[in-house]
Amino acid sequence: MAKAPSNLKDITSPTLLLRPDIAKANLRRMLAKTKAHNLEFRPHFKTHQSHEIGRWVRKAKIDRIACSSLRMAEYFAEDGWTDITLAIPLNLREADRLKALAQKIRLNLILDHPSVAARLAGMNDTWFQVWLEIDTGDRRTGIPPEDTESILACAQTIHAADKLHFSGLIGHGGHSYEQANPYNATAFYKDQVKQLQQVAEMLKDAGIQVPGISFGDTPLFSMSDTLEGITEARPGNFLFYDLMQVGIGSCKIDDIAVAMACPVISKSPSRSEIIVHGGGVHFSKDFLSHPGSSGRSYGQAVQPTEKGWEAVEGVYLSGLSQEHGVVQVDAPGKMEEWDHGDLMIFLPVHSCHTADAMGGYRVYEKGKLGDYIRMMPKQ
Amino acid sequence: MAKAPSNLKDITSPTLLLRPDIAKANLRRMLAKTKAHNLEFRPHFKTHQSHEIGRWVRKAKIDRIACSSLRMAEYFAEDGWTDITLAIPLNLREADRLKALAQKIRLNLILDHPSVAARLAGMNDTWFQVWLEIDTGDRRTGIPPEDTESILACAQTIHAADKLHFSGLIGHGGHSYEQANPYNATAFYKDQVKQLQQVAEMLKDAGIQVPGISFGDTPLFSMSDTLEGITEARPGNFLFYDLMQVGIGSCKIDDIAVAMACPVISKSPSRSEIIVHGGGVHFSKDFLSHPGSSGRSYGQAVQPTEKGWEAVEGVYLSGLSQEHGVVQVDAPGKMEEWDHGDLMIFLPVHSCHTADAMGGYRVYEKGKLGDYIRMMPKQ
Repeated sequence: MAKAPSNLKDITSPTLLLRPDIAKANLRRMLAKTKAHNLEFRPHFKTHQSHEIGRWVRKAKIDRIACSSLRMAEYFAEDGWTDITLAIPLNLREADRLKALAQKIRLNLILDHPSVAARLAGMNDTWFQVWLEIDTGDRRTGIPPEDTESILACAQTIHAADKLHFSGLIGHGGHSYEQANPYNATAFYKDQVKQLQQVAEMLKDAGIQVPGISFGDTPLFSMSDTLEGITEARPGNFLFYDLMQVGIGSCKIDDIAVAMACPVISKSPSRSEIIVHGGGVHFSKDFLSHPGSSGRSYGQAVQPTEKGWEAVEGVYLSGLSQEHGVVQVDAPGKMEEWDHGDLMIFLPVHSCHTADAMGGYRVYEKGKLGDYIRMMPKQ
Repeated sequence: MAKAPSNLKDITSPTLLLRPDIAKANLRRMLAKTKAHNLEFRPHFKTHQSHEIGRWVRKAKIDRIACSSLRMAEYFAEDGWTDITLAIPLNLREADRLKALAQKIRLNLILDHPSVAARLAGMNDTWFQVWLEIDTGDRRTGIPPEDTESILACAQTIHAADKLHFSGLIGHGGHSYEQANPYNATAFYKDQVKQLQQVAEMLKDAGIQVPGISFGDTPLFSMSDTLEGITEARPGNFLFYDLMQVGIGSCKIDDIAVAMACPVISKSPSRSEIIVHGGGVHFSKDFLSHPGSSGRSYGQAVQPTEKGWEAVEGVYLSGLSQEHGVVQVDAPGKMEEWDHGDLMIFLPVHSCHTADAMGGYRVYEKGKLGDYIRMMPKQ
């Protein structure tokens, strides 16, 4: 009974299955939540990196997006997107291409240092929208709220420049991934937003209006009861979700829209292990702690159901090499359920990275395989 | 003085630099070592996955290669390679494509189970060369040497089949990656080979000749004083090497042929951290243990020298998210040496995965940037 359904018989090699019904339901839910709070919704497209999936979002009347590299912004501009936030501190080495893109679309940049603000102000021939990044606790990029001197210097430089428009403050709750589960997401969200609002007040007192407050991350937008105090929502992973998000509490496994299908190529009954074709170049190497032999899980075996997935308890990916996946079969009697040449299906730990590693998706909807959807090519 | 050399000024975004002089020296050294032991040399092309780099190998008069997926074998067959080992247990779901390829080139398959041998023998219309995989301790794929019943069943089925040619025994010393450094690589190599030879003797006693013994893995072929007792050498990573191989003792950092160049996009002096554009989708997520804040290193900062690289001690990648790399700067006074828009260069932990994630290489030789070399596209 654990074998993959016969409607997957055309899958012969490692394949990333995409269930559009689930992804579109995730999109509708997040859209409704942001609408209820009167927010601009700017989904982050680094998760799917695909023109075609982007068009599903456009059909939902969304006209602004976030990207994580200039190349990705150029790729989506080619498909008609005209309002893109490059949601990573701007890279001064790409100045010429940034200018070229900003002459075609509304390009929103982010920065977190006065010297970068000064360099950008010096490029006096192109209009840029500029967000100032504040570090609300993620400790990756952004100016700490207490460094009012740098914040003021940046804002004043942007404000005074002829061709820069100050869009406001931008934050990212990346540290929400590191909180214990369960945790009070609403309180955590409020704390982040309060920090951004205090910076906005400080700037207002200094005579600089703050038109917007943009905040990102899937866990908080999935779990917080309120989305008050900001103007723009910028989650990304929510479209596909994954095991990491299940672990955080952002979603249930039925909300995960992608899964890897991998052929069985070897079995070791004495070690209770099955080897599949499906390794680090397919899944990527993100893992969750797991109380098993290797201490790690790189994916959970599942069966597709009408609404989503049913976990095959005690069967998970405990190791990955370049092309091999080691499946630990802790459940008694399960080893015999898969034979050489059968297919196993796994939910990924981190769907953004698995999608990036795979380069494309095979549609799987209502028990039928559909088209292949390409992603942005590598390089 | 830590800034990247001015000859890299044309690099504007995350780029995998490839130094052909170093890669070709690695190739010459491994070729000389295998020739000295009178071995067939069958380099594994999963490391570079590129037609152009494959042609460097062909120029060295090598006419046989290994690949890690059927798709990769098809890709190299397109470029004229006519003797390819698919060095992963054969995937029965790909039977039709395996047949199609075997009708064009000499295709060598590997298997490790009597039922797969029987299925292959049943495809009675195509010639396949077949290797039987023995698990010499790697505990991933292959039949354990003590399971003589399965070994005999496989060999007899292959031997009796009309259109299968029994090529011999194949092993992989993947567990050489897990040995403490330093360790006695020669003794370790001899132990592996002894196991394969004992299986060969057992088969000979049962009336089945074993034409070849093929063995793989870069650490043992780099470090063992002898390569006796086998007929074919199948290392892959040796072409590029990486920090993992330095850790094992297979090479020095001057032997590493690839490095990532990443622009500086943010700085946090209070945390002694620099943020570069260069994340998990560029480096992949392999890491080494490191006695620093995160306990991990995803890459070592270096400066290019005439012969190779000079480590910038105390400066390394301590974390990766999708597009961001966190550089820990433990060395006092080093934070000021890089500014926003500067370039940092890192040796990768696992070059095969970094190359796969990047999709291509920028040639960097004698202090000059050269052509862009493409890899096999994703999907």
